[in-house]
Amino acid sequence: MTHQIDLNSDLGEGYGAWTMGDDAAMLAIVSSANVACGFHAGDPLTILATLRDAVSRGVAVGAHVSYPDRVGFGRRPMDVTSAELTADVIYQIGALQGLAASVGTRVSYVKPHGALYNTIANDARQADAVIAGIKAIDPSLVLMGLAGAPILERAKAAGLKTVAEAFGDRAYTPEGQLVSRRDPGAVLHDPELVAARMVRLATEGVIEAIDGSTLRLHADSICVHGDSAGAVDMARRIREELLAAGVSITPFTETK
Amino acid sequence: MTHQIDLNSDLGEGYGAWTMGDDAAMLAIVSSANVACGFHAGDPLTILATLRDAVSRGVAVGAHVSYPDRVGFGRRPMDVTSAELTADVIYQIGALQGLAASVGTRVSYVKPHGALYNTIANDARQADAVIAGIKAIDPSLVLMGLAGAPILERAKAAGLKTVAEAFGDRAYTPEGQLVSRRDPGAVLHDPELVAARMVRLATEGVIEAIDGSTLRLHADSICVHGDSAGAVDMARRIREELLAAGVSITPFTETK
Amino acid sequence: MTHQIDLNSDLGEGYGAWTMGDDAAMLAIVSSANVACGFHAGDPLTILATLRDAVSRGVAVGAHVSYPDRVGFGRRPMDVTSAELTADVIYQIGALQGLAASVGTRVSYVKPHGALYNTIANDARQADAVIAGIKAIDPSLVLMGLAGAPILERAKAAGLKTVAEAFGDRAYTPEGQLVSRRDPGAVLHDPELVAARMVRLATEGVIEAIDGSTLRLHADSICVHGDSAGAVDMARRIREELLAAGVSITPFTETK
Amino acid sequence: MTHQIDLNSDLGEGYGAWTMGDDAAMLAIVSSANVACGFHAGDPLTILATLRDAVSRGVAVGAHVSYPDRVGFGRRPMDVTSAELTADVIYQIGALQGLAASVGTRVSYVKPHGALYNTIANDARQADAVIAGIKAIDPSLVLMGLAGAPILERAKAAGLKTVAEAFGDRAYTPEGQLVSRRDPGAVLHDPELVAARMVRLATEGVIEAIDGSTLRLHADSICVHGDSAGAVDMARRIREELLAAGVSITPFTETK
Repeated sequence: MTHQIDLNSDLGEGYGAWTMGDDAAMLAIVSSANVACGFHAGDPLTILATLRDAVSRGVAVGAHVSYPDRVGFGRRPMDVTSAELTADVIYQIGALQGLAASVGTRVSYVKPHGALYNTIANDARQADAVIAGIKAIDPSLVLMGLAGAPILERAKAAGLKTVAEAFGDRAYTPEGQLVSRRDPGAVLHDPELVAARMVRLATEGVIEAIDGSTLRLHADSICVHGDSAGAVDMARRIREELLAAGVSITPFTETK
Repeated sequence: MTHQIDLNSDLGEGYGAWTMGDDAAMLAIVSSANVACGFHAGDPLTILATLRDAVSRGVAVGAHVSYPDRVGFGRRPMDVTSAELTADVIYQIGALQGLAASVGTRVSYVKPHGALYNTIANDARQADAVIAGIKAIDPSLVLMGLAGAPILERAKAAGLKTVAEAFGDRAYTPEGQLVSRRDPGAVLHDPELVAARMVRLATEGVIEAIDGSTLRLHADSICVHGDSAGAVDMARRIREELLAAGVSITPFTETK
Repeated sequence: MTHQIDLNSDLGEGYGAWTMGDDAAMLAIVSSANVACGFHAGDPLTILATLRDAVSRGVAVGAHVSYPDRVGFGRRPMDVTSAELTADVIYQIGALQGLAASVGTRVSYVKPHGALYNTIANDARQADAVIAGIKAIDPSLVLMGLAGAPILERAKAAGLKTVAEAFGDRAYTPEGQLVSRRDPGAVLHDPELVAARMVRLATEGVIEAIDGSTLRLHADSICVHGDSAGAVDMARRIREELLAAGVSITPFTETK
Repeated sequence: MTHQIDLNSDLGEGYGAWTMGDDAAMLAIVSSANVACGFHAGDPLTILATLRDAVSRGVAVGAHVSYPDRVGFGRRPMDVTSAELTADVIYQIGALQGLAASVGTRVSYVKPHGALYNTIANDARQADAVIAGIKAIDPSLVLMGLAGAPILERAKAAGLKTVAEAFGDRAYTPEGQLVSRRDPGAVLHDPELVAARMVRLATEGVIEAIDGSTLRLHADSICVHGDSAGAVDMARRIREELLAAGVSITPFTETK
């Protein structure tokens, strides 16, 4: 029996003269790229360069949609109306679809970014607005969300396909939720440990919770980061250990 | 023998709480709507509302792409690089395509806005960058440009379909160019006179130049404005006189 | 015994080619102008024009600071950090001070706008961040806030002078709070009624609450709106009735 | 006889989550900091951090004003109106003055950035608009410009104090102009060579032109860069060699 999993990362997050992370390095590691759409990061030229690299690497492309908050990098919760949010989601996906088409690829999925990601994990109204936007532009788009979060069930009920992701560098509660960043031990820094946890997740479907208990967690994809040299190293280590354990790293879009 | 012509206008140019012109009134007059894409005007929600109205009126939709200059309303020449301009054009068209798809319509053509429109009429480098962007995202998109301007030939040579437009409220030189706004008599204010000129243009293919000579001018579309009550009245008058003269007002997209 | 009161309104809220309200009309009515600082509205050229008119009318100038949210017109709550908010407040006040200095006037007070105004009325953390910003740039600036809201006591305790404002067109609860816009009767539309209420407030220091009870309310200023023809008419009516009742309309900055 | 010169660099050019250059390293090298004002780079919080460091280092602060073009980093020529440019300059200086006041320092000078810097070196209309903006907000502000460029004489004639700067890493024509970046040899990469040239400039007032001739050039300040590790090293080398040659590095604001 073979195992496979998707690795995803946030890319295309430069803006004009500013850079963020090492997209080229990460595109050699991941199988899916969450590409910024201009609202929290990503100008058209930067996005285009990332998409070209993704195509040449065979990496799947997702729309990393955000609140309109460039100076806050989309990290600040905003109480937008549902109509605004739906329109913003459509606009961003459309823009990325256009850029993707121009380099011969397509947008396969949508992963909300930052504060929007966190908000819709639990906020039904904003979740519904995002789902409505996705369905309005292309109901075949897959929604990527936090494994175990209500948003995934909500999206499925609305007719969307979904993908559940786990975070390599985050601790989990025994109930399967992320330990809050405000709590000690929330973020894991040891690449060996993180890689071993992800291998176990991919091969056994379990992860050790912060209290030492064993947690069953279904994840189709693992989110890795590329915003520092250390983060890239950890991502590379996860990839290497997964491959060494016989897990193939494949875009979820090819396995769904 | 029957005559027909397209009437186009710039719409969707509000931004958030700010409005610009009377889109509802203009959509009852024109056959093609140049819809803002967010770079000089138009937030996603405003654009979406305009697109919905365009659909219900059977008005064709074009992407009114611009330099990224909201505070200057896209009216200020910018010396952007070709790569930036191509990417910006793709992004804007894609965003509008997405919004259009969500309300059941599609983008049929591209009309650059403001300073970009004027610049590419004659600037070959920026013209080529715009043409490259259109071809990269969808080579079936039609480029709307100033009747008689080099951009149209350039776009045709590159394989794009084009549409030539005339301006109802502008005077022409004997050579077929627009009289500069800096010169006296450049802008016409009498709705009767303008309407009569446009009827002659649509039925005989000629227009009286500023020196009184008769100028042969081929135009598939007439640009009318909606940014003031007077402008809407003039646009309505042009429509009425064209219809009274037996000219049918039809999206050029249906006659090409 | 004579009575006096200040009338204030939000001005300078155009942006580039877009206009908002009738600043010229309002500057003939009010004694204090809350001038946009660029974050929710107001580009430098628009602000400068409003400041010039304010100077010629002898109207006092306040900084109408906002969250950085132009497309949302500053009306959407944002969970910004305290450090961000403090810096944003200083930046906006400084920019307006510079523009004011260039036309021979000065910024006398600060009135937060929209969602920021509402949030800091009760949110101590964000209130403190705004207060810190004001104190850091110029501790002699007066903070204008909602009569009865905790922000005013908090600002006083921090050493700032404050001004309490009432809203002419809003109903009050018996406890002196604004009736929520979601509840029926929250907004008053009859200019005669509103003007009479404001005369009573200015001369007797009381206002009738929504349940018919009489409420004691101290207000140094009355906020009037100019965003529609009806709003301007109501503001003018309030001014006329106040003057007819012997109340002088004077910038609070001259009476404090 | 002792020599002294000012070293200046562009700082505060991050934006939100994005960083640019190593401000801390550069503030240990230069005597004057051209601080971004938000139009090409620099959000309020980033600017504030740079200003705090400048204060603690005793570095003078200048306003690095720009066209409003964040995505283009202010590097793209824009044909703005004079009124727009004057207002934009005032707004940016005011915002920086406010932030500077909040940390106990002040803005001493103005150095236009990027495309605006290059344009006004020779374009009289835009130069006059910038000069008008500076004079309107504070006529005691010094204008920093390219040694030998017409802008400096123009500003002096208008009553402004000026400072002439040379570029350490750029070649000069025999006439004292910068060799265009499009020409070979325009940019110098050898820190030793650059440092030696700057020592000669500071001590003898001459520099070797690209044709080998000796050029007399008056410069009050030398512009150094901090946007890469190599640039910081070169700046540090220039500082060290100047000090070794007995040249004191002093803000021009203290010597004028």
